[in-house]
Amino acid sequence: MEPEYIQSRQNPLMVRTAKLLSSRKHRRAAGMFAGEGRKLLEEAVKWRPNELYAVIQKEELPWPELPDHVRRISVPGSLMDRLSELETPEGVLFLMRALPETDARPVPGTIVLDGVQDPGNLGTILRTADALDVPALLTEGCADPFAPKTVRASMGSVLRTPPGTISRENLIQTCGEDRLPLWAAALSDSARDLRRTPLRSGVVVIGSEGRGVSRQLLDAADGHLIIPMHPRCESLNAAAAAAIVLWQMTAL
Amino acid sequence: MEPEYIQSRQNPLMVRTAKLLSSRKHRRAAGMFAGEGRKLLEEAVKWRPNELYAVIQKEELPWPELPDHVRRISVPGSLMDRLSELETPEGVLFLMRALPETDARPVPGTIVLDGVQDPGNLGTILRTADALDVPALLTEGCADPFAPKTVRASMGSVLRTPPGTISRENLIQTCGEDRLPLWAAALSDSARDLRRTPLRSGVVVIGSEGRGVSRQLLDAADGHLIIPMHPRCESLNAAAAAAIVLWQMTAL
Repeated sequence: MEPEYIQSRQNPLMVRTAKLLSSRKHRRAAGMFAGEGRKLLEEAVKWRPNELYAVIQKEELPWPELPDHVRRISVPGSLMDRLSELETPEGVLFLMRALPETDARPVPGTIVLDGVQDPGNLGTILRTADALDVPALLTEGCADPFAPKTVRASMGSVLRTPPGTISRENLIQTCGEDRLPLWAAALSDSARDLRRTPLRSGVVVIGSEGRGVSRQLLDAADGHLIIPMHPRCESLNAAAAAAIVLWQMTAL
Repeated sequence: MEPEYIQSRQNPLMVRTAKLLSSRKHRRAAGMFAGEGRKLLEEAVKWRPNELYAVIQKEELPWPELPDHVRRISVPGSLMDRLSELETPEGVLFLMRALPETDARPVPGTIVLDGVQDPGNLGTILRTADALDVPALLTEGCADPFAPKTVRASMGSVLRTPPGTISRENLIQTCGEDRLPLWAAALSDSARDLRRTPLRSGVVVIGSEGRGVSRQLLDAADGHLIIPMHPRCESLNAAAAAAIVLWQMTAL
């Protein structure tokens, strides 16, 4: 398609873009989401060309190769700066149709993220899970995996391997039906060293940095796991703890 | 000491505080640094009471227990908001004298951070190293471990176990003298799976997310290490990769 030129913030597509960037509710209602940055756009073209709907660029930038059906929109730098959520805007935004829903049934060796609300942490954890080839599921209360900050922190992992969503109740029920042991990362007295637990034959739940795994999943779990650490420290950063758990899940 | 009340931004101590928060050069020249937040202040009181010099609080907040020698300074909320570098200021700042220099000689099982420039990543990695009880050294080109963002991301780890600093040249020389194998994390063709390397008997170098380990240390290393990952992914988040390396360094 020929590039279109849009100057006005009031243009309906610009209004929609701003909403897709800022509002989960709007993303859900529209069945679309938005990403930002040249590297992420490359990932979108590579992994999800069919869902890529439009690319919005600062007018002076050269156009990358895009599938024919993708709308190309040039905008003045000032409009791009207004739309961008980055401190130093790269001048590239893109809009995508929601990806097909992923099967959300846990399999042996699945990680479940329970109420991870920080978009950056969520994206980083999904990036690590993707790199270590561990399937990931989200419970209710997690940040939106298709929020721009999450897509960005995931470095496009959510495009390659979008995480499924499952309710806590369904997770407990499915693990029971499929006889999958459910392990919850927790700092409880009865927690066992994660190195001494056969993680790959079960499902591992990790929670948010502040609040940990939900009561419901702690209570339903077959056991609690701990990352042994020096007593002078209380906890690890959520993404660092998740990296250790994920790595241990792939241990030889 | 009785609390003092300061209203003016031009007050010398307020000017100094702003500089300590924003400038590494000033921190070095003054032999002081500044931290922010109640939790970090607790860590400072617990681990470094002698170096704690002053606490600056929004006037309506109750005073925590502090060592007698510590200056207490009440300020109006508007002044605190101006000083604070946080999006949602907690109303608590503190000033500390520089901690005593740490011995910067690498021992078996040391991690070296080479040119990690992002203060958040640096702090998170130092937090993980502290929790897993792995001694850490910084080469030139790392962010300041006593920058407020680093102190914060470290959750006070830099107060408990301040990292030593070593030049790349000294590191290479010392490892040679002490017959310590030097391993560099790198995505090179000849890199070996870090699980198959006796990390604890040597020194492991990790670099920044963007640029990796410096040429100088890559060339001097006895071997390159890789975290095996799915070919669809190029890399891991720096703090996540560091967590995996640190965890593997403590592997049974």
